[in-house]
Amino acid sequence: MPQPISNAYVRDLDRRYVFHSWSTQGNLDPLVIAGGQGCRLWDHDGREYLDFSSQLVFTNLGHQHPKVVAAIQAQAASLATVAPATANLMRGEAAKRIIARAPDGFAKVFFTNAGADANENAMRMARLFTGRPKILSAYRSYHGNTGAAIVATGEGRRLSNEYATGHVHFFGPYLYRSEFHAGSEQEECERALRHLRRVIESEGPSSIAAILLETVPGSVGILVPPAGYLQGVRALADEFGLLLILDEVMAGFGRCGSWLALERFDVVPDLITFAKGVNSGYVPAGGVMISARLCDFFETRYFPGGLTYSGHPLAMAAIVATLDAMHEEGVVENARQVGEEVLGPGLKALADRHAVIGEARGIGLFWALELVEDRQRRTPLPAAQMARIKARLLERGLIPFIVDNRIHVLPPCIVSAEEVRQALAIYDDVLGSL
Amino acid sequence: MPQPISNAYVRDLDRRYVFHSWSTQGNLDPLVIAGGQGCRLWDHDGREYLDFSSQLVFTNLGHQHPKVVAAIQAQAASLATVAPATANLMRGEAAKRIIARAPDGFAKVFFTNAGADANENAMRMARLFTGRPKILSAYRSYHGNTGAAIVATGEGRRLSNEYATGHVHFFGPYLYRSEFHAGSEQEECERALRHLRRVIESEGPSSIAAILLETVPGSVGILVPPAGYLQGVRALADEFGLLLILDEVMAGFGRCGSWLALERFDVVPDLITFAKGVNSGYVPAGGVMISARLCDFFETRYFPGGLTYSGHPLAMAAIVATLDAMHEEGVVENARQVGEEVLGPGLKALADRHAVIGEARGIGLFWALELVEDRQRRTPLPAAQMARIKARLLERGLIPFIVDNRIHVLPPCIVSAEEVRQALAIYDDVLGSL
Repeated sequence: MPQPISNAYVRDLDRRYVFHSWSTQGNLDPLVIAGGQGCRLWDHDGREYLDFSSQLVFTNLGHQHPKVVAAIQAQAASLATVAPATANLMRGEAAKRIIARAPDGFAKVFFTNAGADANENAMRMARLFTGRPKILSAYRSYHGNTGAAIVATGEGRRLSNEYATGHVHFFGPYLYRSEFHAGSEQEECERALRHLRRVIESEGPSSIAAILLETVPGSVGILVPPAGYLQGVRALADEFGLLLILDEVMAGFGRCGSWLALERFDVVPDLITFAKGVNSGYVPAGGVMISARLCDFFETRYFPGGLTYSGHPLAMAAIVATLDAMHEEGVVENARQVGEEVLGPGLKALADRHAVIGEARGIGLFWALELVEDRQRRTPLPAAQMARIKARLLERGLIPFIVDNRIHVLPPCIVSAEEVRQALAIYDDVLGSL
Repeated sequence: MPQPISNAYVRDLDRRYVFHSWSTQGNLDPLVIAGGQGCRLWDHDGREYLDFSSQLVFTNLGHQHPKVVAAIQAQAASLATVAPATANLMRGEAAKRIIARAPDGFAKVFFTNAGADANENAMRMARLFTGRPKILSAYRSYHGNTGAAIVATGEGRRLSNEYATGHVHFFGPYLYRSEFHAGSEQEECERALRHLRRVIESEGPSSIAAILLETVPGSVGILVPPAGYLQGVRALADEFGLLLILDEVMAGFGRCGSWLALERFDVVPDLITFAKGVNSGYVPAGGVMISARLCDFFETRYFPGGLTYSGHPLAMAAIVATLDAMHEEGVVENARQVGEEVLGPGLKALADRHAVIGEARGIGLFWALELVEDRQRRTPLPAAQMARIKARLLERGLIPFIVDNRIHVLPPCIVSAEEVRQALAIYDDVLGSL
């Protein structure tokens, strides 16, 4: 490696050897990142950025928190890795702290590498517990990108897992683009629940294992559910004997201004999946929080799921340090306060000022600006204009999170009011320059 | 936490809060591990073990290699995590080193969290490249435990990935329990290839994207393919225009006494999947090595796959340090030499001495003892006896790797001749005491 390292060297190495996610490889010019601290990142050439993406919505504790870095270093020095079948101190301590943040009645944690395999295993548990094949989930959802390794597997571990069929999709509430022709949040909620009941009845409740929902659907647009919706889903699940799985991979661990997003909606599921914020993504990790009822079931039934790095010591040490730091430093309270007092009102004010913003919606530090060509018809802003906005935000030193016609606004949960004001000024300028 | 930490404390925490892979939760009494060095591990109460499992066959560089530990600590200090869409120094350096160990004609690496999602993405690439739906893989295989997250997903990223059907299984060669009634390795090879040709013709070659094979099937029994088999598969793939994916998750990076297992069989696939040994499992990581032909295709076609922790900086730093240390310290050469001169002959000698060993087979440091009740009829040794063997090996201070009626013998690739002799003596005693 040349010294000092330059952006050009890193970009060239990347373009030569690294194949990127969700991309056409020929078009890429990836942003070079060399280091960071808190809400700031920088490259090798001295350029600094304000990170309002939290990368892929995971650095809830910001970059390079000293306690988490020290915990990773200490664990690396004593035992970097170990098999999942063993018992390991940090794994137990991490699980204990996660269960302490789960609703009453939750008992154990199954650790995975990330969110996708967390959802994989939650669905597996639900199917085994109920003996039923189908999973209902929302069209507007993202639950991960895996789908075939176990059916490609030939040996016996495949047999109890040939489940990739039986996935049924329904529409959740989303008033701004309502499928139900609703005119108010209350109407949207009632109609969405009536629709879900109809789907359950049409598919046959006795064939359905679980309803899987993001507590607040994230990648698809930060669709905060209306009051009563999640309780209504819970009531439907109870009425028909289905399990409820809440996916808190993106919404959990501070993002919504609460430890888990479900606290904001007063709903208790049977299984909760998590990843990202649980250790700010410092080491890959995810998992499933399991209610006592399901734990009891698996006391005497075999669970046919597993993975090499389940409960990896480095990831566990990062979870312990992250959750302790979040508690000690009031990070969740900060997310709630800065979200409610500065970010939310600031984005609403931007929406008042810029006709291109069709809707500003969110909760805690989990917000989206939906950009439209025409406020009346709500036509999404075309991709070329979104690309221009992205480029201008980056020029102004802000790392944005752009999906389709939306700017998702997702700073680390440690963000200060002052940093939010800086970001709001940049969004304001760039949207004003269109 | 109490000080000092005891085994009892860790085991209690584990049994209270941690849900385990591949288990009935009520029966567990997991081994407590506190630390390790090289081929040794120890618990909190001062008990030491010789690790002949490499955990789940991943600590190829042994435990706590100082250079890899230091690399993880240094990366944690500068940038623990970053989004996959960026360019990052260690990601480029890791990909460059991996491609340097791939056959000629390989160009780029797509990083994943582990082996399952490596196979997921290799299959996705093959299906997109060929435009065909089916994947052929072996009944005796293990390719990972994911299978439904993307079909549960509702949004558009699901559409190009609804592939969990179309998985066809065939039999690979395995002379000891031949499906083909073969009497020699050569006959087994010829008949297995004739069988595969028949399956391809019966499924319709124009519907098949790829053949997916472990270079040396691992979990299912370390089934070293006979001379000519993998070349025969390559020839069939070429004849019918199919891609060949080799899964080197367990067999690669030193395990077979070569950098990649495929070198021992003189075969070049189109895609290679890896995980485990690439960084000795110190940080969760896996990936796909992609040949130039497929890279060219994806220059102009969108690749609809991705994951949050793809190319995670800590994992990448561990890969760079691991591959550099393996090179500098001759770890691959050690695996080959100790395997060929000490472990292989030693296990064969055990098989000569103990009637319970039906077959000792392997390559490099990748060996299995197949235990039978009756050598003539090859009846597998019952589970209760295998459990007794496992308990006795642990009592003697050796961590074994037991699957069904087999002892897999898989020390770290840094193992010394002396450590192998110690282990052989323990296996000898325990098998003699039956």
